[in-house]
Amino acid sequence: MILTVTLNAALDLTYRVPALSPGGTHRVSDVAERAGGKGVNVARVLHALGEPVIATGLAGGRTGERIRELLAADGVPEAFAPIAGESRRTVVVADGAGATGFWEPGPAVPAAEWTAFRRRFTGLLGVAHVVVLAGSLPDGIPADAYAVLIGLARAAGVPVVLDADGDPLRLGVAAGPDLVKPNAAELAGLLGRPVPVPTAAREVRALGAREAVASLGGAGLVAATVDGDWRASLPHPLDGNPTGAGDACVAALARGLAHRQPWPDRLVDAVALAGSAVAAPVAGAVSISRWRRLRQAVTVCPVQEG
Amino acid sequence: MILTVTLNAALDLTYRVPALSPGGTHRVSDVAERAGGKGVNVARVLHALGEPVIATGLAGGRTGERIRELLAADGVPEAFAPIAGESRRTVVVADGAGATGFWEPGPAVPAAEWTAFRRRFTGLLGVAHVVVLAGSLPDGIPADAYAVLIGLARAAGVPVVLDADGDPLRLGVAAGPDLVKPNAAELAGLLGRPVPVPTAAREVRALGAREAVASLGGAGLVAATVDGDWRASLPHPLDGNPTGAGDACVAALARGLAHRQPWPDRLVDAVALAGSAVAAPVAGAVSISRWRRLRQAVTVCPVQEG
Repeated sequence: MILTVTLNAALDLTYRVPALSPGGTHRVSDVAERAGGKGVNVARVLHALGEPVIATGLAGGRTGERIRELLAADGVPEAFAPIAGESRRTVVVADGAGATGFWEPGPAVPAAEWTAFRRRFTGLLGVAHVVVLAGSLPDGIPADAYAVLIGLARAAGVPVVLDADGDPLRLGVAAGPDLVKPNAAELAGLLGRPVPVPTAAREVRALGAREAVASLGGAGLVAATVDGDWRASLPHPLDGNPTGAGDACVAALARGLAHRQPWPDRLVDAVALAGSAVAAPVAGAVSISRWRRLRQAVTVCPVQEG
Repeated sequence: MILTVTLNAALDLTYRVPALSPGGTHRVSDVAERAGGKGVNVARVLHALGEPVIATGLAGGRTGERIRELLAADGVPEAFAPIAGESRRTVVVADGAGATGFWEPGPAVPAAEWTAFRRRFTGLLGVAHVVVLAGSLPDGIPADAYAVLIGLARAAGVPVVLDADGDPLRLGVAAGPDLVKPNAAELAGLLGRPVPVPTAAREVRALGAREAVASLGGAGLVAATVDGDWRASLPHPLDGNPTGAGDACVAALARGLAHRQPWPDRLVDAVALAGSAVAAPVAGAVSISRWRRLRQAVTVCPVQEG
């Protein structure tokens, strides 16, 4: 079973309007509600792949209850810890021209709730084969939260995949996760300077991560692993909505880790699954049949020592 | 006790952002949550005035539960009927330049829930001195819903104030409410042609309403009543946010009806309370001290036969 952790879970709302007009009033013709936050998205993709998964994290208030209801409706098992604060919403307004997003800040989490979560997490480690830590931290959760959870997972012998940004990423990498998946911006922030990607992924390993995969949008993935370094990509970038592609990629990497797949196979799966999310009509959804088709088109090449 | 009915209650969210940028992603710095819908707003103003009130209507799902929680937090007694559908949200994005609104459509209400609501309403009529019917109808509620509720209230001897638009207004007026409060646009829609206001208010009486008050924004109110016709206004329009001014006006008119205030006094209260809402820093809030101050400035003049 793969355990995903989402400390700042969200209720994702997508509003369809004919045209966004600042200063105007819009009757929303269509409202889509989804449980969100990076870890939740990873869990939903894993569930779609038929992979046993439990989504945990923090969820509070009526928004938190709605998040749990929507996960249940999607068939995703969850073990969220209840908190007193109200979980955040995200609102995306989609019109013909594009998408405009509004991100609520999320709740403030008191120390006692963070302590209670660590206890819950330790219990769940007993049934987990891989842990995925993904997304932003709400107020009140310390910046070393992922480092602390990585320490607990290492003590329990459960490998960890980390997808984070800023200080939680920096402190998390230093705690020795098995795999970290930064995008180009997160990589530059982590290293403090622009570094060409194959070298950058190797430097992340030197900072503490056992292995690293950098995601480069339409240019695919670069992996620095114990079995060597690889670049994986589709022959040309796909048109579509990149929302959720990173989460689909993390889901494939976590599954590959759980099944001890050879690295080239993991990268083929990850590039194809991310591509399947880009091409999906609904943001963040993946299509298993499209994933299977796209796998045929992914190329994986060893990266020469740079 | 004044009973307010809100058949399409809402969770009103106000997001503060530095500047709305279409196509961009915005971190919301401040989120305000409020129970909303016209009848709910009227109930909150009446409660602020110290007037005994019960808010009823339809509320469903986690959003409906949040609406009831927020009313409870404001101290407003409520007797909402639960429905299976999810109550709607409204999102207002406020930046330095103004406010941009997104209105969810609201739930679809099956016939059985509408039948159950009428039973609940009939029960509540036993303790009500005035009923306020205000706002839009959700899908599934028939256009003559206000007409039906007016019939039930008349049978119970409880006077009704109606604030609606379109067919629900037209059918409601024909059912003989004690007072109807259209704004200029609703008045024009109701009469089917532009009519100068004092005459228009009289024509609404001829359509079935016992009395009518037309709200003209900064130009104040025009009332066509059994005691004569009146115009009430402040010496000059107030700067501020007109959101909620109409609901504050309806609250004052319902209170005046409950206490059988002389019409000039009701109109002074209504203009001053609407003005207090316009000048409030929070949309729709009223200030009792500002209301008292503004009352000194309202002029009420009889309207000559036109």
